[in-house]
Amino acid sequence: MNTQVAIIGAGPSGLLLGQLLHNVGIDNVILERQSPDYVLGRIRAGVLEQGMVDLLREAGVAARMDREGLPHDGFQLAFDGRCERIDLKGLTAGKSVMVYGQTEVTRDLMEARQASGAITLYNTSQLQLHELKGERPYLTFEHEGRTQRLTCDYIAGCDGFHGVSRQSIPAGVLQEFERVYPFGWLGILADTPPVHEELIYANHARGFALCSMRSPTRTRYYVQVGAEEKVEDWSDERFWDELKRRLPSDIASQLVTGPSIEKSIAPLRSFVVEPMQYGRLFLLGDAAHIVPPTGAKGLNLAASDVSTLYRILLKVYREGRVELLERYSAICLRRIWKAERFSWWMTSMLHRFPDTDAFSRRMQETELDYFVSSEAGRRTIAENYVGLPYEAIE
Amino acid sequence: MNTQVAIIGAGPSGLLLGQLLHNVGIDNVILERQSPDYVLGRIRAGVLEQGMVDLLREAGVAARMDREGLPHDGFQLAFDGRCERIDLKGLTAGKSVMVYGQTEVTRDLMEARQASGAITLYNTSQLQLHELKGERPYLTFEHEGRTQRLTCDYIAGCDGFHGVSRQSIPAGVLQEFERVYPFGWLGILADTPPVHEELIYANHARGFALCSMRSPTRTRYYVQVGAEEKVEDWSDERFWDELKRRLPSDIASQLVTGPSIEKSIAPLRSFVVEPMQYGRLFLLGDAAHIVPPTGAKGLNLAASDVSTLYRILLKVYREGRVELLERYSAICLRRIWKAERFSWWMTSMLHRFPDTDAFSRRMQETELDYFVSSEAGRRTIAENYVGLPYEAIE
Repeated sequence: MNTQVAIIGAGPSGLLLGQLLHNVGIDNVILERQSPDYVLGRIRAGVLEQGMVDLLREAGVAARMDREGLPHDGFQLAFDGRCERIDLKGLTAGKSVMVYGQTEVTRDLMEARQASGAITLYNTSQLQLHELKGERPYLTFEHEGRTQRLTCDYIAGCDGFHGVSRQSIPAGVLQEFERVYPFGWLGILADTPPVHEELIYANHARGFALCSMRSPTRTRYYVQVGAEEKVEDWSDERFWDELKRRLPSDIASQLVTGPSIEKSIAPLRSFVVEPMQYGRLFLLGDAAHIVPPTGAKGLNLAASDVSTLYRILLKVYREGRVELLERYSAICLRRIWKAERFSWWMTSMLHRFPDTDAFSRRMQETELDYFVSSEAGRRTIAENYVGLPYEAIE
Repeated sequence: MNTQVAIIGAGPSGLLLGQLLHNVGIDNVILERQSPDYVLGRIRAGVLEQGMVDLLREAGVAARMDREGLPHDGFQLAFDGRCERIDLKGLTAGKSVMVYGQTEVTRDLMEARQASGAITLYNTSQLQLHELKGERPYLTFEHEGRTQRLTCDYIAGCDGFHGVSRQSIPAGVLQEFERVYPFGWLGILADTPPVHEELIYANHARGFALCSMRSPTRTRYYVQVGAEEKVEDWSDERFWDELKRRLPSDIASQLVTGPSIEKSIAPLRSFVVEPMQYGRLFLLGDAAHIVPPTGAKGLNLAASDVSTLYRILLKVYREGRVELLERYSAICLRRIWKAERFSWWMTSMLHRFPDTDAFSRRMQETELDYFVSSEAGRRTIAENYVGLPYEAIE
């Protein structure tokens, strides 16, 4: 089998890249280790930056998002018993974010992919990448009981943090940057009405809490828990009790509780590799970088990588601009590091850290107080939250 | 001896408070442990915020500062081989800072004090504070071989970090917040023309450096050194060599060197006590809080404490508003914590920290890059550097 671009991973970044390339006539094949249902079963992010919203529209997969998604013009920061609004729209000259679950984005992309007739092979295994430094790299894998080979011009590694793409790069090529935070997020999904029309990020002496949502009838709430906590120890009742204690009382009193549909604990990590390419292999999204979820940057960073690689490949195939390929990693990393900084800062500012001294706690309180009380401070929060601009490819 | 306000310490804050009170007819006596020459021999800060400049003018001691001081409308941040300007005036709607040495401020205040006829007792010793919780507190001390007693309404502790004022407050009353940084500043004073018309704060792989000045012919330069370094090991030549290596090459090539007039190493510390008052004793400036020098906030914070206590005492004596006295500490601390945050942030952003991992170094680089590249980010730096507004006393 031959194609122009082999895409590893049928999550939102692989599917979005495939759709964009397909729309402009660049042939591509997606290989996915799991089944479609497994991919759709993963509960992930739900806040899309303006840049990702625009990219989904450009890809022609935004109809349902534009119908069902919830535009949010602001969010709430709760601390010190009060709730302060970050007016995204007012502080960024009109930008906002869209609340629309990653699961829904993936579903829309899968449907578009199916309608397009482009090839996606699910349930592949034994994937190996070959000749990455050569002119014609290829992949070998097992599919429906047979060993197959896919030859291509370029490979897009969209297979996440644990995927085979990054691991196929020889030792010593990549430099890793990592921070593991000493806590996790216990998250719950429930069919209850949101406690507030906007997201609430809460800093509380008992730990961080986040009130998020997927739709007007489905909520996603989180509380910070110790790194050693087990989800079995958290009944729904215990979760709701803990969440209420961490919210300002006027908000807590309005919280509607209900049975959880999903409940899990996620660790928090910052991770980046440099460079994000090796020969004809390009890494995108979680395959190259992880952010802690505070600030909702993970999926959005994957989208900006997709945008960068798509625009480069378009110029490569249409205009022969092969020199642009060498710039992929540097272009992506400039934006990634700034989003890593924002995610690290939001995480540092909003969570309780074990073994912190009194001075550090005061610095955290003052950081929140200053940034919220200063218009310039609020503007830095807002411009990062809606997403820094994508870099033009010229 | 009796007075209305006893002021401990004849540094700039004690002298400035004394002058302001004297101007409105509130009697005060200043006690100082050292001689005038010793006080004037201390080389300290040299960047005055707009608020302090205004306060010196209000006190009637600004004539020479307005003649000889250097208004600075911006400063430079050097990092990553480049030099970026923070346009203080443009980013804060017209505010700036004044470069004028603390030594000169003190000299002007001493002369005004002498001209006013108000009493300053130098070379006092054995100072003790009594009856702080009573209606008529008093001080006992040795002066010119005799034990003396000074009875007053209120005591202003302007005697610095190591002074007796804070130490006179019973154990258990004050909560201390402290951060000791794992490095110091090696500073040099020289009669050389400044390398740049504005201050340069430099982040470099070899450590922080600062190019400052006292006048068009006198410079004050610093380099970050390890906490264990000794000034004897730093010849002038070694200092100049090290400084040059830490500056962008186009600036280093313009550096004029010369023999040092003064050379010393200062540790870096953040420190705050809460509350800043006990009965009729009020702590001001370094007696209550220390900032690392990055950002030049130390003297300026003392000035805002002076302004707060002065305005409260004015209303106490003129309008009987004694209830304001209880608010002194809270009013001061709101501004102090924000300046502590800014000083800690500037220090964290510009210095090399031992044992930092690769992720932390990237966060530091990205923090600099983001804040300098974003207008909102530059505005947060500028508004803090020129000084956040003084709180009104009403």
